[in-house]
Amino acid sequence: MTVLCVGSVALDSVETPFGKADDVLGGSGTFFSASASHLSPVQLVGVVGSDYPVEKLERLRARGVDLSGIEQADGRSFRWRGRYRHDLNAAETLETHLGVFSDFRPKIPEQFRRAPFVFLANIDPRLQLGVLEQVEKPALVACDTMNFWIESRRPDLIALLGKVDLITLNDGEARQLTEKFNLVHAARWIMDHGPRFVIIKKGEHGAFLFTRTSIFFAPAYPLEQIFDPTGAGDSFAGGFIGFLARTGDLSEANMRRAVVYGSAMGSFAVERFSIERLMEITRDDIHTRVNEFRRLVAFDVEMPA
Amino acid sequence: MTVLCVGSVALDSVETPFGKADDVLGGSGTFFSASASHLSPVQLVGVVGSDYPVEKLERLRARGVDLSGIEQADGRSFRWRGRYRHDLNAAETLETHLGVFSDFRPKIPEQFRRAPFVFLANIDPRLQLGVLEQVEKPALVACDTMNFWIESRRPDLIALLGKVDLITLNDGEARQLTEKFNLVHAARWIMDHGPRFVIIKKGEHGAFLFTRTSIFFAPAYPLEQIFDPTGAGDSFAGGFIGFLARTGDLSEANMRRAVVYGSAMGSFAVERFSIERLMEITRDDIHTRVNEFRRLVAFDVEMPA
Repeated sequence: MTVLCVGSVALDSVETPFGKADDVLGGSGTFFSASASHLSPVQLVGVVGSDYPVEKLERLRARGVDLSGIEQADGRSFRWRGRYRHDLNAAETLETHLGVFSDFRPKIPEQFRRAPFVFLANIDPRLQLGVLEQVEKPALVACDTMNFWIESRRPDLIALLGKVDLITLNDGEARQLTEKFNLVHAARWIMDHGPRFVIIKKGEHGAFLFTRTSIFFAPAYPLEQIFDPTGAGDSFAGGFIGFLARTGDLSEANMRRAVVYGSAMGSFAVERFSIERLMEITRDDIHTRVNEFRRLVAFDVEMPA
Repeated sequence: MTVLCVGSVALDSVETPFGKADDVLGGSGTFFSASASHLSPVQLVGVVGSDYPVEKLERLRARGVDLSGIEQADGRSFRWRGRYRHDLNAAETLETHLGVFSDFRPKIPEQFRRAPFVFLANIDPRLQLGVLEQVEKPALVACDTMNFWIESRRPDLIALLGKVDLITLNDGEARQLTEKFNLVHAARWIMDHGPRFVIIKKGEHGAFLFTRTSIFFAPAYPLEQIFDPTGAGDSFAGGFIGFLARTGDLSEANMRRAVVYGSAMGSFAVERFSIERLMEITRDDIHTRVNEFRRLVAFDVEMPA
């Protein structure tokens, strides 16, 4: 089944302890699509400026990402420049230029409106709500958000919660949104405001999937080198939603598998700059990593006499 | 099989966002014993001052902890006073009075010297080395340590690494000891200096067990209320070593189970002040929590077509 993703398509300039990259493909929609396209067809909606090297997006198209929802507008593209120091969990934003993204009003092409899976990547909650007015009864709507919207668009974000099935956010954002320090309490608060499922991402410390009746935890893969953490969360979401779309199964057992696929895709994303690693991996690589996750947490319980 | 533990027996005064406790039982040896005694007999070696309420240790004796290695010396007992704020991962030490602990030279009673499992809790590495000279070929020797010894007793600690099978330490300590930020690299560095097994504890973010050929990860239990984190690490070690001593099985599959028992015992310890919760739980409570851990990480892998 197909996934519709609405998000940013940007140019990133990143500095990590291991190297530097300038004006490489970035943005939540880009990472999500690069990841999800390993598992299901993707329809991407976003905006780029007149300066965007659109030919570089051809690699996504070749992977099954339908780019007919990418609008090219007059003006500069969304650019982000950031740096990671030794503690790769925290990005330091050096510059953000929204460019054409600041006037983005997503228009969902007619042929995208019946996508069964919808991912509203991290954009203004008002725009996320606007997307939902244009689509027809998806099987699952998921959204992401960030600290900026929690601060500046709280009422809209709360309204959005009432209309989505699932939200992904990181631990700091969950605490900020709910004003609850304990993540179990935070997840319950969010579910009380709408979503049936809450995924709280903890970066290198793994991710929780909360449902109304259970908690599932998947660790992050203990990589020997994290090259560039940019896009890990969106690649996680791509693996997660892509797996659900491929299998079309929203049972809890399958949601758990989807979290592991998400974690696997997130772990690949950080092995190189931009979407480079996501572009080169194969189904076998993904299969192998998912099995490594299984071994990482595998134990059987026997109560000793 | 029996576990010999050499560690501190202290009086703690603790303040958390949820309450306050004064002069309650504390110390690494105390928490370890309270935890391990649920699974195997424990022999505890430590020192207390003339002011210590030794009658309060009777609860440990009643649980099968042999206290004949506890020496009562003239002087004041080891006292620690600390505070936790909202972020319960970090204790703020307000006062430490070593008292008689500063002259502690562990003497292992004759009847303790053939214990098959030995845990050298967090004390001066020189004393830990001294203990090893007094015991006869244990099946497994494990040790703990802390930032203070890593700084002030580095050569002794390195010498100790050459004589233990396993070390438990937290992520910050592993980084400090090895000067490697990446935990996979840090664990490898430590194994290159002796231990076959390295457990890196990440507090609320779980724990890794590294062997020369594998990595196992167990999350911390997502408690709805962490009341007082004091002693979580020693209770983890008690559950871990206690389980190994009970089963007498050092296979990797059993080491993994032991980590889960350790995590379960650590999760109980933080539910009340001091060893209170460890004193009231039953085998059924432990069994139930271990099964909750299993559910927390359970997933099956199926590669979608």
